[in-house]
Amino acid sequence: MKRLFPRLVLALGMVGAVGLCASPPGAEAEIRKLLADQVSAWNRGDVRGFMQGYWQSSQTTFSGANGTLRGWQAVFDRYSREYPNRQARGALAFSHLEIIVLTPDAALVCGEWALARASDHPSGVFTLVLRKLPEGWRIIHDHTSAVSRQ
Amino acid sequence: MKRLFPRLVLALGMVGAVGLCASPPGAEAEIRKLLADQVSAWNRGDVRGFMQGYWQSSQTTFSGANGTLRGWQAVFDRYSREYPNRQARGALAFSHLEIIVLTPDAALVCGEWALARASDHPSGVFTLVLRKLPEGWRIIHDHTSAVSRQ
Repeated sequence: MKRLFPRLVLALGMVGAVGLCASPPGAEAEIRKLLADQVSAWNRGDVRGFMQGYWQSSQTTFSGANGTLRGWQAVFDRYSREYPNRQARGALAFSHLEIIVLTPDAALVCGEWALARASDHPSGVFTLVLRKLPEGWRIIHDHTSAVSRQ
Repeated sequence: MKRLFPRLVLALGMVGAVGLCASPPGAEAEIRKLLADQVSAWNRGDVRGFMQGYWQSSQTTFSGANGTLRGWQAVFDRYSREYPNRQARGALAFSHLEIIVLTPDAALVCGEWALARASDHPSGVFTLVLRKLPEGWRIIHDHTSAVSRQ
């Protein structure tokens, strides 16, 4: 019984957490898959595949140290320009993902990104807002920052 | 009739936009007021008043070029440390606010910030995610970047 108690508390806690968030089943898993697919696409040099994660709309926005870009095409153009070849793209990894499903069709994702490149290892944090559209979950807004590790 | 036509188109467009967004009446106005109140508090030197806009929770997060801070207190401590006096705080202004009410109790706000100070004029972009809580709309996540105007 003593050994069962922590597991019981854990199980009840998990039920409570699920109840509070009221996430539709699968939403978090679907979003995790979308992000994993983005990383896979990036790491095989498929920037267009990476961009599948974004809402293909003129209203999609991307904010960062250069201000705010508007439209899927502008975001794609930026990635193409800033990461023109395998050396610049490096190997991408996402970590510390925190997915908050706000409603059955809207979610907030916070996480960290890191690029392993021959010359350097830039990294930082990102905020994504996603909506579940007819075509599936898509990023409607991305705010990405580089973090200088001191 | 010629002069009425643009107004009719405008009116129909507004009805259409409201229908599409399905915003609860007042949500956008309430959020605009929250942000205006933050700016007023900041500009009278009341950082604690400014912090009223944030969810008073250990789960509130703030991301930027220094990574991610967790908890209302950590965000308050950062503002207090980085902006210790009137000279550092300068005069704050928000502009280009874009408020997307995702659901009756969740919203995304993108905008620009600028500080007018004697010594410099830093500015940048921010992304806020807000939830409508029993105490009103509150920022649950803030991602802020400085933009270097070149």
